[in-house]
Amino acid sequence: MLTSGQIDRWLREDIGHHDVTNEVPGDTKGRLVAKQKGVAAGISAAASVFEHLGVSVVSSLENGTPVSAGDVVFETAGPARETLRAERLAVNLAGHASGVATNTRRAVERAQAVDPTVRIAGTRKTTPGLRGIEKRAVVAGGGDSHRLDLSHMVLIKDNHIAEMGLENALETFQKRVSFATNIAVEAESLEAAQRAIETGADIVLLDNFSPDELQTIVESLTTAREQVSQNVLLEASGGITLETLHAYAATGVDIISMGSLTHSASSLDYSFRTD
Amino acid sequence: MLTSGQIDRWLREDIGHHDVTNEVPGDTKGRLVAKQKGVAAGISAAASVFEHLGVSVVSSLENGTPVSAGDVVFETAGPARETLRAERLAVNLAGHASGVATNTRRAVERAQAVDPTVRIAGTRKTTPGLRGIEKRAVVAGGGDSHRLDLSHMVLIKDNHIAEMGLENALETFQKRVSFATNIAVEAESLEAAQRAIETGADIVLLDNFSPDELQTIVESLTTAREQVSQNVLLEASGGITLETLHAYAATGVDIISMGSLTHSASSLDYSFRTD
Amino acid sequence: MLTSGQIDRWLREDIGHHDVTNEVPGDTKGRLVAKQKGVAAGISAAASVFEHLGVSVVSSLENGTPVSAGDVVFETAGPARETLRAERLAVNLAGHASGVATNTRRAVERAQAVDPTVRIAGTRKTTPGLRGIEKRAVVAGGGDSHRLDLSHMVLIKDNHIAEMGLENALETFQKRVSFATNIAVEAESLEAAQRAIETGADIVLLDNFSPDELQTIVESLTTAREQVSQNVLLEASGGITLETLHAYAATGVDIISMGSLTHSASSLDYSFRTD
Amino acid sequence: MLTSGQIDRWLREDIGHHDVTNEVPGDTKGRLVAKQKGVAAGISAAASVFEHLGVSVVSSLENGTPVSAGDVVFETAGPARETLRAERLAVNLAGHASGVATNTRRAVERAQAVDPTVRIAGTRKTTPGLRGIEKRAVVAGGGDSHRLDLSHMVLIKDNHIAEMGLENALETFQKRVSFATNIAVEAESLEAAQRAIETGADIVLLDNFSPDELQTIVESLTTAREQVSQNVLLEASGGITLETLHAYAATGVDIISMGSLTHSASSLDYSFRTD
Amino acid sequence: MLTSGQIDRWLREDIGHHDVTNEVPGDTKGRLVAKQKGVAAGISAAASVFEHLGVSVVSSLENGTPVSAGDVVFETAGPARETLRAERLAVNLAGHASGVATNTRRAVERAQAVDPTVRIAGTRKTTPGLRGIEKRAVVAGGGDSHRLDLSHMVLIKDNHIAEMGLENALETFQKRVSFATNIAVEAESLEAAQRAIETGADIVLLDNFSPDELQTIVESLTTAREQVSQNVLLEASGGITLETLHAYAATGVDIISMGSLTHSASSLDYSFRTD
Amino acid sequence: MLTSGQIDRWLREDIGHHDVTNEVPGDTKGRLVAKQKGVAAGISAAASVFEHLGVSVVSSLENGTPVSAGDVVFETAGPARETLRAERLAVNLAGHASGVATNTRRAVERAQAVDPTVRIAGTRKTTPGLRGIEKRAVVAGGGDSHRLDLSHMVLIKDNHIAEMGLENALETFQKRVSFATNIAVEAESLEAAQRAIETGADIVLLDNFSPDELQTIVESLTTAREQVSQNVLLEASGGITLETLHAYAATGVDIISMGSLTHSASSLDYSFRTD
Repeated sequence: MLTSGQIDRWLREDIGHHDVTNEVPGDTKGRLVAKQKGVAAGISAAASVFEHLGVSVVSSLENGTPVSAGDVVFETAGPARETLRAERLAVNLAGHASGVATNTRRAVERAQAVDPTVRIAGTRKTTPGLRGIEKRAVVAGGGDSHRLDLSHMVLIKDNHIAEMGLENALETFQKRVSFATNIAVEAESLEAAQRAIETGADIVLLDNFSPDELQTIVESLTTAREQVSQNVLLEASGGITLETLHAYAATGVDIISMGSLTHSASSLDYSFRTD
Repeated sequence: MLTSGQIDRWLREDIGHHDVTNEVPGDTKGRLVAKQKGVAAGISAAASVFEHLGVSVVSSLENGTPVSAGDVVFETAGPARETLRAERLAVNLAGHASGVATNTRRAVERAQAVDPTVRIAGTRKTTPGLRGIEKRAVVAGGGDSHRLDLSHMVLIKDNHIAEMGLENALETFQKRVSFATNIAVEAESLEAAQRAIETGADIVLLDNFSPDELQTIVESLTTAREQVSQNVLLEASGGITLETLHAYAATGVDIISMGSLTHSASSLDYSFRTD
Repeated sequence: MLTSGQIDRWLREDIGHHDVTNEVPGDTKGRLVAKQKGVAAGISAAASVFEHLGVSVVSSLENGTPVSAGDVVFETAGPARETLRAERLAVNLAGHASGVATNTRRAVERAQAVDPTVRIAGTRKTTPGLRGIEKRAVVAGGGDSHRLDLSHMVLIKDNHIAEMGLENALETFQKRVSFATNIAVEAESLEAAQRAIETGADIVLLDNFSPDELQTIVESLTTAREQVSQNVLLEASGGITLETLHAYAATGVDIISMGSLTHSASSLDYSFRTD
Repeated sequence: MLTSGQIDRWLREDIGHHDVTNEVPGDTKGRLVAKQKGVAAGISAAASVFEHLGVSVVSSLENGTPVSAGDVVFETAGPARETLRAERLAVNLAGHASGVATNTRRAVERAQAVDPTVRIAGTRKTTPGLRGIEKRAVVAGGGDSHRLDLSHMVLIKDNHIAEMGLENALETFQKRVSFATNIAVEAESLEAAQRAIETGADIVLLDNFSPDELQTIVESLTTAREQVSQNVLLEASGGITLETLHAYAATGVDIISMGSLTHSASSLDYSFRTD
Repeated sequence: MLTSGQIDRWLREDIGHHDVTNEVPGDTKGRLVAKQKGVAAGISAAASVFEHLGVSVVSSLENGTPVSAGDVVFETAGPARETLRAERLAVNLAGHASGVATNTRRAVERAQAVDPTVRIAGTRKTTPGLRGIEKRAVVAGGGDSHRLDLSHMVLIKDNHIAEMGLENALETFQKRVSFATNIAVEAESLEAAQRAIETGADIVLLDNFSPDELQTIVESLTTAREQVSQNVLLEASGGITLETLHAYAATGVDIISMGSLTHSASSLDYSFRTD
Repeated sequence: MLTSGQIDRWLREDIGHHDVTNEVPGDTKGRLVAKQKGVAAGISAAASVFEHLGVSVVSSLENGTPVSAGDVVFETAGPARETLRAERLAVNLAGHASGVATNTRRAVERAQAVDPTVRIAGTRKTTPGLRGIEKRAVVAGGGDSHRLDLSHMVLIKDNHIAEMGLENALETFQKRVSFATNIAVEAESLEAAQRAIETGADIVLLDNFSPDELQTIVESLTTAREQVSQNVLLEASGGITLETLHAYAATGVDIISMGSLTHSASSLDYSFRTD
């Protein structure tokens, strides 16, 4: 959900103090058209830019729909000036979000070809101001949003453990947050992972391991997961790319999180055409 | 220049209502470190996030400086809680902007190897909310910001010409904008380009031509440029990529603009380390 | 964490266009003093109002500290005009948040006298604009923040179940949200609760039951909890007051959530005194 | 009058980055229903939340109307998703404001049973961000808003008098503010009150006196009020509660101001029901 | 008091996305110097622009101080880049506000030469976004701010009286607003003015009368004012200019309000000089 | 284009917390009427205030249209309360902007009577928050907006030249800004002007010369302009008033810029009338 304040700021940023070429009278119709194969996302955000300026949007595709070159994403009808002013921002939003969704879909397909149950998740490495749009684009691409902000899930990191001790850290944070909040614990070794499971972590984060190391750890943890907590999830992260994803997916981890889903996606190409 | 409102909104987006893991007492020192070779940008933006929270920043590199893995971009000193809260946003900003600058530097080098005078320019295809940061990152990478917003330069497009006629459109917009504002005219053919030059365009935009077509047009325009306007600039655009850039740079155009500089740059990898 | 935009808006609201009585030159010292027994909260928020106006704050109590009449919460030093302008807003914030914390502490004590493991949780019935402050005040009072916003935890309600079926609803929402997000299911009967547990709910919400009904349900669910999911939590809600809390705490539920913690707390009395 | 920025911020606060359970297609009708006896307020604010999201509101009660359990306050019609997203915020606003109005009505009735001409007034002890809504709720409950902000009326306090002298303070502030602005003077004794009246105060504030002391002062001031200023008003304040209100109302003061009207009102219970 | 949000927006408006000429390293000192005789106002606003950017301001004159060409209003010290960026906005604010103050001083002097007790007041005809600054500038010039906003004082206009009747309108609005709020009544004739006084108006507004008509009315009202209300004030308004002010000041009214004080003041000339 | 945030802030500024006199039920029609001869501007801004509150606007004049007393600028239809609340802000905006346009038209006519090709331009001396509205008003009056913000055009000033040398400064800034950005150079003498032209300045700013000095410089530059750059423009500025404009227009400069167009325009008188 975009706020009117956000849309206003973004339009202002693109229009400046004195835009003359869009001072066009009358009404016009237009359509947002994909110029490339990919996964549509940011569509409701793009539509809301037009609607914010009094241009109506009809027959919109849903976020997550696959598109090919030539597909019409939605159609608009309304005042020409406002339509033209909304165009660039709307295309930029849809292109950016769809790039993230397409990027995610690619990763999900590659990983699930190896292990159909593994989840591909985003991170907090998102573009400032676009957290919500990018997280929803990851979901549109079949990925997992991962934690939405620092308050959504607690992550106990190395430095917390070094300073407070694992058990103490877990207990301390459990008291400070709600039952509604899961707690992930970063583990630097198999032993650390076992202790984290025993202490009640909801997720164990295995950061910067090689696929081989990971596989050994995951296998060694089988008993602990069966006996102590069937629900605990194992997450791998740390510089995992489309190229290495295959090997990570084969390790048996439940979740693979990749910053590149959001911070390094190429935009999907759209054009907006008026009649 | 980031406003405090912007920084506040971005911090809020990342922190949420109840962040507990960064509730750390005391002071700490930290440093922003490059983990990858590239061009630094967004550095003053990243620094201003720390400063906004009362953390001081020292010994900062300038935007546009080349960095290698391990280079320290700046150092921080101040309250631990605020340092930790600023970290993710600062890294995201620096990584994003430096990705744009690095991407631009690559394009500039490739093009200027062919024609040392050609300018590589950005477009309005920027990430909503980050127009200024991305434009300055393009400049940090050795590129040309191109027009900053719709009010900065007028672009007379096909549809204006179709509706108003070229000469009429140019005259109309010249009256409505300042002497401070340049006017670019999109030309769909050599003839159109010649008329645009004769009518007084400051820039002629040649969109979606092949390198061969472009070269023919540029050569044919030589006389017009010498006789009519030595200042008129020729700009090529339309799906030009790092792969095809070489051929476009050889055509003799003055400016090559590429949306991909901003909308499809991969983030540059940074980490923030506290002592 | 209050943003400067928020503090500015709140100060503006109280000061108006032309405040003359606080136009006092020079510096002054002041202190925030409790006039009533209770639990301090909103203290860092109150302090940040002074700091926003360039008044420094020293020796601050931590949120959650019990206070008695006469206790100094923090001291200030700085320009008299800014100190006086910050005063009312700071007192209003501290009074409101401390009222919520004190109210929560009372409920927690009453409930835990019966069952030391039961959690008293807030709800989304918070004052618009003060969600974060009130949630942190609930925590300061020994309570559980419950979900911070709609994105923090999914609650599957009666109407979702009526429309989609329980299993289908749970599966659908599990796909749309992250592994980081817990899912609560509202259950209207023992059978519904059992099915929710079997389908994998993280929390079962038992809304509007009497203590007797609740106790029967909780006991009947013992086997399911042992066999199917040791982690599933049972939450009671629906018009539970300080008067009836005792009976609900005796039912064996894990969580009792009460809107009145935030929406009906009386302010705790503070005064701000300058020298 | 709520601004769109305010409503946006409040919705954002409740919805977060990725709300899935309200992603419901189609239209729906709903109604806001009182679940408790009281005085309706905040109704136009609650309605404007729905309207902001494109949901229309019909047959709305006016602020200040008494309601009983089951009374429909207004009905809504529009997109289901937006209706569900508006619901919680709208109920929170109406509940909070109606709680203030109901609380005020109770105080007004109690006081006016003793002296039908006495006014019950609010203070600046309002919830940050809700000044306007709470002031209008006090009025809806039959109370007096008192000064809306520091610029609305000047209050000359003890410390002003100590520093500047009463006559000097009054004269100084009269020069700095408009004829449109009334001036109240705090009086710590009968003599101070007499001097304030003679110097031209519009209101004399008698803070922290017992009912007996007050009555003596009010009676002693009768002559001054008749001879010097028939318009001067006497206001009592300072920890006056519903329990002690009776005694204060009997003293003959014109105005009794109570912070508890706004800072310690319990929310009035509403529910929002969709078909 | 300017908020940081306001200053940020104003700086953004002047700076745009990519300002290069002020990218100056190091520190600098500067001073704001009057280039013209007049009355200083907006000085604290101008100073706060520098301070917002981390530039310190010393030895500032107070608002309301008469200045001559060459007078230093304040001095600055701090980073050169920020100093240069603040300059234009600060000068614009000080020039605008001082223009209003100087304009007001001129009117006050002209009127008080005729009647030393008459007040010259502003109106609501202020520049959008600058209400507070302009009102305080009127006061700095020796004028009366008049009502600050619609909530500060009630004005019962012709159309209210036509629809509701004078007595009814007055009574209705008295009930809806605080004792803290004065009520002015517009009177179209001597009789209307008399009734307004008898009904309890605090101010009688005599709009669009000639000086002669006004004088007759004022004299005829002497008895009513003596017998009914010694406090009631008579206000003249309606196209009164510096040229006609003399005649209006001679009529005996208490207040003369002039929109031109704020909406038609010429800026006072300042320059900002760095060393 | 006004944003909803701007309109909201401006309405809030005028309305305050508790406006009662505009609480009028039902619908009304109204019209904005000129009371004075001049040039209409700010009309779309004024209209957008009504539209923002749900009041429709019809038959609106275009910005730049000459108006006489009695001319209807636009008509409104919609809820009475919102119409009345929008009125003052809309009139203030239209009056202010039309004052600027009228002021500009007067200057343009006076200058073009002497030299029909000379352009009258605004400056950055605009009212904070109204840059866009005032720039568009200058254009509506037949003037030239001049640079819209610091990023629109580079101005190399005395101090840049003193520090960096003219050629170096020009080269440095040319590298940092886009081909889309013109560069003006301030010249303190004929020789400086010649060098600026030779170095490639787009505009030469001749600040604070007398008309006689200017004329000599302009004539002496004829050859340089013919040989070096036919496009270079000469701009005069520095305390030029309506009284001295005639002499400056006769010097042959291309542009005369006047801060007084915006910072010292008297408002044009409008009234808003409801039926």
